[in-house]
Amino acid sequence: MERIKCGSLRKDNIEQEVTLKGWVQKRRDLGGLIFIDLRDRSGVVQVVFNPETSGEALKTAENVRSEYVLEVKGHVVARDGQTVNPNLGTGEIEVAAEDVTILNKAKTTPFMIEEQSEVSEDLRLKYRYLDLRRKEMQETFKLRHKTTQSIRNFLNEEEFLDMETPMLTKSTPEGARDYLVPSRVHEGEFYALPQSPQLFKQLLMISGFEKYYQIARCFRDEDLRADRQPEFTQVDIETSFMSKEEIMAMTERMMKRVMKEVKGQDIETPFLRMPYYEAMERFGSDKPDTRFGLELVNISEDVKGSGFKVFSNAVSSGGQVSAINVEGKADDFSRKDIDKLTEDVKIYGAKGLAWLKVKEGTLNGPISKFFSEDEAVNLMRRLRAKDGDLLLFVADKTSVVQDSLGALRQKLARSLDLIDHSKFNFLWVTDWPLFEYDEEEGRYHAAHHPFTMPAGGNLEELKKNPKDVQAEAYDIVLNGYELGGGSLRIYQKEMQQEMFEVLGFSQEEANDQFGFLLEALDYGTPPHGGIAFGLDRLVMLLAGRTNLRDTILFPKTASAQDPMTNAPGDVSEAQLDELHLQLKLTSKSDSDE
Amino acid sequence: MERIKCGSLRKDNIEQEVTLKGWVQKRRDLGGLIFIDLRDRSGVVQVVFNPETSGEALKTAENVRSEYVLEVKGHVVARDGQTVNPNLGTGEIEVAAEDVTILNKAKTTPFMIEEQSEVSEDLRLKYRYLDLRRKEMQETFKLRHKTTQSIRNFLNEEEFLDMETPMLTKSTPEGARDYLVPSRVHEGEFYALPQSPQLFKQLLMISGFEKYYQIARCFRDEDLRADRQPEFTQVDIETSFMSKEEIMAMTERMMKRVMKEVKGQDIETPFLRMPYYEAMERFGSDKPDTRFGLELVNISEDVKGSGFKVFSNAVSSGGQVSAINVEGKADDFSRKDIDKLTEDVKIYGAKGLAWLKVKEGTLNGPISKFFSEDEAVNLMRRLRAKDGDLLLFVADKTSVVQDSLGALRQKLARSLDLIDHSKFNFLWVTDWPLFEYDEEEGRYHAAHHPFTMPAGGNLEELKKNPKDVQAEAYDIVLNGYELGGGSLRIYQKEMQQEMFEVLGFSQEEANDQFGFLLEALDYGTPPHGGIAFGLDRLVMLLAGRTNLRDTILFPKTASAQDPMTNAPGDVSEAQLDELHLQLKLTSKSDSDE
Repeated sequence: MERIKCGSLRKDNIEQEVTLKGWVQKRRDLGGLIFIDLRDRSGVVQVVFNPETSGEALKTAENVRSEYVLEVKGHVVARDGQTVNPNLGTGEIEVAAEDVTILNKAKTTPFMIEEQSEVSEDLRLKYRYLDLRRKEMQETFKLRHKTTQSIRNFLNEEEFLDMETPMLTKSTPEGARDYLVPSRVHEGEFYALPQSPQLFKQLLMISGFEKYYQIARCFRDEDLRADRQPEFTQVDIETSFMSKEEIMAMTERMMKRVMKEVKGQDIETPFLRMPYYEAMERFGSDKPDTRFGLELVNISEDVKGSGFKVFSNAVSSGGQVSAINVEGKADDFSRKDIDKLTEDVKIYGAKGLAWLKVKEGTLNGPISKFFSEDEAVNLMRRLRAKDGDLLLFVADKTSVVQDSLGALRQKLARSLDLIDHSKFNFLWVTDWPLFEYDEEEGRYHAAHHPFTMPAGGNLEELKKNPKDVQAEAYDIVLNGYELGGGSLRIYQKEMQQEMFEVLGFSQEEANDQFGFLLEALDYGTPPHGGIAFGLDRLVMLLAGRTNLRDTILFPKTASAQDPMTNAPGDVSEAQLDELHLQLKLTSKSDSDE
Repeated sequence: MERIKCGSLRKDNIEQEVTLKGWVQKRRDLGGLIFIDLRDRSGVVQVVFNPETSGEALKTAENVRSEYVLEVKGHVVARDGQTVNPNLGTGEIEVAAEDVTILNKAKTTPFMIEEQSEVSEDLRLKYRYLDLRRKEMQETFKLRHKTTQSIRNFLNEEEFLDMETPMLTKSTPEGARDYLVPSRVHEGEFYALPQSPQLFKQLLMISGFEKYYQIARCFRDEDLRADRQPEFTQVDIETSFMSKEEIMAMTERMMKRVMKEVKGQDIETPFLRMPYYEAMERFGSDKPDTRFGLELVNISEDVKGSGFKVFSNAVSSGGQVSAINVEGKADDFSRKDIDKLTEDVKIYGAKGLAWLKVKEGTLNGPISKFFSEDEAVNLMRRLRAKDGDLLLFVADKTSVVQDSLGALRQKLARSLDLIDHSKFNFLWVTDWPLFEYDEEEGRYHAAHHPFTMPAGGNLEELKKNPKDVQAEAYDIVLNGYELGGGSLRIYQKEMQQEMFEVLGFSQEEANDQFGFLLEALDYGTPPHGGIAFGLDRLVMLLAGRTNLRDTILFPKTASAQDPMTNAPGDVSEAQLDELHLQLKLTSKSDSDE
């Protein structure tokens, strides 16, 4: 008899004979009866063993423990009115067992399955296969599947071709640190795992495929944070002949489709667009979370002549003064609370956090004495301040003001519970600078990557004044996370050569690393551009999780280890010999574990 | 105005104003007119520039060369009756150009695009982006896309979850050679790139996901042949609670769907099944090509008493004699031709190739004198031989007989053009031995992998008599290629431990390498099994190609190099230092390139 899914049984199935296969979620013995909650991927159903109809099965059931794997045969029956469980899909019925087979036994698991368990993440990762049995995890990976399919279906319908680029590629020093793979055949040489398929997807445009996508694994050997993993998955898209507007509109259609199919939500398009400069000014972030207010207001013009020298000096020395109005919260913050906030902004280099409270139409606080009545009125007008509001100020270099108030804004929103978690606020950040200047190294870095088209494709500006050149680039932001980014690419050889020159490559270096691209640009390269998304991060946001590891089946820890398999691990001398390598360990030990 | 696809234009579009973007396939100047074949992903259309309507565009067109990228505006017009090209989808129309923009120029390409060019594969790989412009290549990768989507759609509908397993995993000495990835954080330790997601997909079954699939990149650092690549793509499937029959039936539904959607062909299911023993006996191969006959016939019983000692001795010393009847070809093979065939079988260790020709109801040839009339009649009956047939014999150890005649069978089929290339003959090979005995090492190897369930799940047989135990394994074969294989897996800890013991693992070694799997088997592992296919090979067969490299966008050469990017390549001292490595080069040179 064909197996029936546990979670699918309903009142309509009453009297039906069924075969179930699944795991014992729980066993309860009650007045000579045995109740087993049987769980499979679809959900849980209650199975009852009783002396009258279950016969030998009752005896077997007595030996059953949590997480045993069972095959149960029986009939679906209605539950007594009293025992109906309205919280369970299958709560109106149960299965009266007639036969049971123990398919496999289970030892006591190191932690309870299905609890919101207080277990350490290390233990959960060591027994990841058990942690993945929890309903929350099962739901997350079903959602991941659904998201992937939704994206694929959309792109297939729009005539994108799903194409696989190589994993064993060439190492290039530009960008993040590569994972390397030693070659056995070519002594002393290495492949690199791709940080992204960027160059290959551009070559596919040069090949004339016009519309490419790939859900691609990418690798970066960087120190990890909560939202970084050594390997991550990217939805990678590239098109020929499409304008920036067309690429952005296509992306919006895709996100609309995903939100509808995965979350059942209609989202509005086009998404809000915000120039990079405005995002930094108003939100102190290049990936603003627009689900709440607490915007930064630049009051430099208002206070440049202020008697409060901290403010006026900041402005006169080329910095700025910005403020956040924490509306209605003046009474919620003691001096001690504000001291704590001050510590927070100091992390970002701010020398202090000035504050004022509005009471009875006037400014109060230690610095209020520096402001004339006119100045105070103007300040309140600029900050839309009213009685009961708390005003927080940072006066410093522009980058410090933006970074510190940006971080403070987010911290306040969380602690004051100002975030509507049902919202999905998509946003484009546009008009990025093409370069970042690295003061330490005295050189330019590409803000996105060295293949990004300068705004307007202006070669002369690029040569003359690289610092001020903007990029034909666009980042997509969701709820304060950078979901992805893209750009139009350089498709003229001269422009690409100039780009490498600005980045400090000698001609030899450029040819050595990117010669194949430069050569390819000679043979009829179409205008092209694209975008790439972090799939793990998108799934994290759609699933309402906060840890990227919860969206990856077998993630690595912060030290890039897998506690389950113990990867990475030792390899044999013979393996090293074949790869023409020897270890060069520091003196401290043979192994750092 | 929206861009129109070149290849989409038909008579219905006549008088329509269009904007086209694409590559110059060819330019011809004829009586003051310029004809350009403009190509994009969809196909080619003829664009005409003439002095009356094209104006400035005609001037621009004069400078245009092959592979330039153009934007053309114009109107669709009917071609003159004489100039209609019935071989081209767009052959009834052309576009009268009114405006043209050169989007990018192109140097003369190192080989012609669209020719069946006689260019070396190395040059084609160096300029892969140009080679990929050829129609044949474009079609192959469109077919690959279609195949992938067809597989995904099928598996999604059957409720399989698309799940991503790690690429940075642990090295295990069992199986092929791993590609290693040195760890920066953990001195002297390495990750390995996966040879397949085998263990992870089994763990996902232990996690309760029940139906998993992944189109997964896999890696093997082995010496390459025409049908091997360092990285390849596998359609990887695993299920819980499904029987072998259910898995095979599901696979057949999937192949039926792919053949219908990709090739428009209805194929019959269920597929033919053949035990391994029979495949070796009848076809001399564990992946028989059943599109043609030339079957091997084991005549050991018939010749064991023969006066021809080569035959009778082979049988009496434990070997066998088998024959192939090359029907109707007696006159096509001279003694010299047969000498050539003899050289071929010697490659496989055969000492010689005996032969007989049937003429006027009797056997002819140098060995015919050894057979009595009765023996000759019996032999002809057994081999269904009739006048004009050529009979070829090998007498030797069974493995030599099968290997040599199996190879000869394929060679004859090709040279005699016996293969119907429109056929897609799917076939299951079943009842595999669980182990292969390695005479040299004096140990057993797993014929599939060490997680394969012994037939009937018989632990006692496994302990007592491993040599004769069969596997719950099934390979799927298409036209003589192994397309994929699968098995039920061991889900009981004791069985898995016994398996490792037979394979010669000490308990410590087993725990060191597979401890996490053994431990996982303790916690409620469901019965499970699956299958995996080589996607590259499937695409190769569906596209009618013979070289695996033609199905991979950026393949490696036989020495695992990419002539385009020059991967693998040198890395810096700093990179090696960070990875705690130094090179250990042999004396011959610093680099072998």
